[in-house]
Amino acid sequence: MKNNEDTLSKQIYQEFKQNIELHHYLVGQKLPSIRTLASKRKISTTTVLTAYNQLVLEGYVKSVERSGYIVKPLPTIPTTSNPTSAFTHDFSPGKNKTLDEELFDVKTMKSMTNKVYNYHQHDLLSPADPFGEEMLRDQIQKYVLKERGVTCHKDQIIIAPGVQFLLEILLSIVKKSTLLTTPNEFQKAMTIFQKHQIKIHHTKTFKEMPKYDFLYISPSNVYPTGEVIQMDDRINIINWANENDAYIIEDDYNYFMRYNAFSVPSIHSLDHQERVIYIGSFSKVLFPGLKISFMVLPIHLIKKAEQSMKYHTQGVSKIDQLAMAHFMSEGLFYRHTKKLFSSYKEKNSVLMKTIKQLQIEQLCKVTSTTSNLHIVLTFYDKKDKDLFINQCNVHDYNYQETHQENTIIFPYEGIKNEEMYAVFSALFTFNK
Amino acid sequence: MKNNEDTLSKQIYQEFKQNIELHHYLVGQKLPSIRTLASKRKISTTTVLTAYNQLVLEGYVKSVERSGYIVKPLPTIPTTSNPTSAFTHDFSPGKNKTLDEELFDVKTMKSMTNKVYNYHQHDLLSPADPFGEEMLRDQIQKYVLKERGVTCHKDQIIIAPGVQFLLEILLSIVKKSTLLTTPNEFQKAMTIFQKHQIKIHHTKTFKEMPKYDFLYISPSNVYPTGEVIQMDDRINIINWANENDAYIIEDDYNYFMRYNAFSVPSIHSLDHQERVIYIGSFSKVLFPGLKISFMVLPIHLIKKAEQSMKYHTQGVSKIDQLAMAHFMSEGLFYRHTKKLFSSYKEKNSVLMKTIKQLQIEQLCKVTSTTSNLHIVLTFYDKKDKDLFINQCNVHDYNYQETHQENTIIFPYEGIKNEEMYAVFSALFTFNK
Repeated sequence: MKNNEDTLSKQIYQEFKQNIELHHYLVGQKLPSIRTLASKRKISTTTVLTAYNQLVLEGYVKSVERSGYIVKPLPTIPTTSNPTSAFTHDFSPGKNKTLDEELFDVKTMKSMTNKVYNYHQHDLLSPADPFGEEMLRDQIQKYVLKERGVTCHKDQIIIAPGVQFLLEILLSIVKKSTLLTTPNEFQKAMTIFQKHQIKIHHTKTFKEMPKYDFLYISPSNVYPTGEVIQMDDRINIINWANENDAYIIEDDYNYFMRYNAFSVPSIHSLDHQERVIYIGSFSKVLFPGLKISFMVLPIHLIKKAEQSMKYHTQGVSKIDQLAMAHFMSEGLFYRHTKKLFSSYKEKNSVLMKTIKQLQIEQLCKVTSTTSNLHIVLTFYDKKDKDLFINQCNVHDYNYQETHQENTIIFPYEGIKNEEMYAVFSALFTFNK
Repeated sequence: MKNNEDTLSKQIYQEFKQNIELHHYLVGQKLPSIRTLASKRKISTTTVLTAYNQLVLEGYVKSVERSGYIVKPLPTIPTTSNPTSAFTHDFSPGKNKTLDEELFDVKTMKSMTNKVYNYHQHDLLSPADPFGEEMLRDQIQKYVLKERGVTCHKDQIIIAPGVQFLLEILLSIVKKSTLLTTPNEFQKAMTIFQKHQIKIHHTKTFKEMPKYDFLYISPSNVYPTGEVIQMDDRINIINWANENDAYIIEDDYNYFMRYNAFSVPSIHSLDHQERVIYIGSFSKVLFPGLKISFMVLPIHLIKKAEQSMKYHTQGVSKIDQLAMAHFMSEGLFYRHTKKLFSSYKEKNSVLMKTIKQLQIEQLCKVTSTTSNLHIVLTFYDKKDKDLFINQCNVHDYNYQETHQENTIIFPYEGIKNEEMYAVFSALFTFNK
């Protein structure tokens, strides 16, 4: 069909469709014959035929042999006006959550992406491996072994766009009903367990724990305090899992953000009985716009996983997966984490100095200061907490409340070193 | 801490950790004093202190005032050897599922991505809007209005890496228990409903349907046959939804792949009472490596959605979202779909010719030939179906079985025009 004819056909189709809908043509009425209309409008019969066929396809008319095109009956739809509604759509992340542009190596990331477009066209055009790109799983396998002592085969690794997506996959493989975790654990993860009707209990001790199906924990950096689960408790946890047939979900979030010590080994490296499901993420390390997380499943779950993944979509774009794989294989990722760490360490020391200068500890206990990119503020007086929250809202800074009434989590990753003093002065302006 | 000292500290930490684990240091035993060790090894006391502090942090020793560093008791972990297991990991997509490289405009995609790196650094570094990037939702709003008659506000649009992820979100907002769909509907979508314990029923008629909570349907391209739901049934469906307080989930999959007619309007465009949830996807249109789908929610569900999305991660990488937004806003997407369509139309006609030449219709009825990128083969004889499947397996071509015993879905998007005859000859080699 030529373009011009196509446009003409569409016009005729639209015209008749409208006329039928407006009842200018009534049910049972015949449309003009193809030849009549074509000659009347001085167009080809094909053009009219195309328009009529479209009306038949959509069910406005039927073609009756020897009789022509007859208008079909259509039910009516009652209409109402749309309710007007104000969309709030308030998802502002706050000024303190946007990373320094200096920490983002645009040039390198760009060159990685271009590499993918240049050398992986075939990969981009073929359907995805539901576990994730083999090239990236290969790199992750080497990385977790070297950095975290996690021994696994690349086919034990599943890639997804975030921890929530990994947990959805995990819970499609392992059907369980109870979970133990530390107070204030990662809210988004808990959302998924709640959705699956899994009962969540909190624990502060790891000695003589009762029977549960899962333990969700970040042993090298307990959220939000940044504590480290000590060696005796790690062993207790492993033995508890062995005895109770339980799984430890080790969320190894920000393990390397530790300013007063080296990073602490993973609990997976202590496990000899396949009780640990290890979870890692690159989003926090590279930039929040990139969504790549992964989990290492125990060997005995792989067959079930392969079965289940046949019906799962791989959510991470191949471009991002392959760019990340190049980033890792060329040693750039390692270099980047070093740079990131030293820059955050400096930010942390600027923060500590600011807290001292402003005598913030007169108003609240400040913890989580030797790891992570947030501090935990426990106010001595509820009034002061409310004043602080008010200042955060006024100045558009993000904060997070916890299960403890006077305790607030405050992220500082997005505050520039040179602005630290001014920001905290403004937020604690009532401290005079 | 200088680099050299850091390495030395780590060595000392490793050495003592190992000695404690191997019981060369026993519980209660004192480590050498910091000063003694420093002078013995000719290193600074800071270096030793750092190593000892790490051992304290991880719980191997405790620091006792006036007494020094004392080895703590540790439970033991029983060990077993890992079971060896063969990973099959067989997710080969088959040769017929990988798209033509000619259809993939690498240069343009590359330039879109580079634009994102150059002009959206700030966006990439800030946390994501859980609904998806505003810039892309804005483009989608214009696109669905223009191409599909879908009227909505950009804040009614939620972006996710695929239909499965959208359905997970939908089901976190709307709790329902029954679903109606056409036979053989999109398997991956059904997986999510099954996971949520939603009862699925199949229907072939849309007249006088009983009460259900959801209807999942691709009215402009019913899977896998490519049929169009006719106008009277569309109105029946809308009226049924109104009367039963049901939602129509309109999966507008490949709506534009129709070779014998224009594309058919969406059912959303007929809906005046907010009963339709519209789903669209870009993955099929651009390339399988890119994962962007979206849904348009009715206005009355937005407040609930905003509440629920606070605890959801946006899974699509910002780079992909913003590159797609540029691709659309510059009119390149429209041009691309036109190109894609005409190329698939040609492929379709080559296929039809091949089927005739090889007299394939002697063995099976061939349907779904006027839309889509697959054909549906209904064999007259089970033996022939088995022979065909066998040939597919031998030559690594993908096929999909259906609820009808002798009916097979066979995709042909990845078969080059010039290879079509050879491929079908090989797969139907028994037709002699």
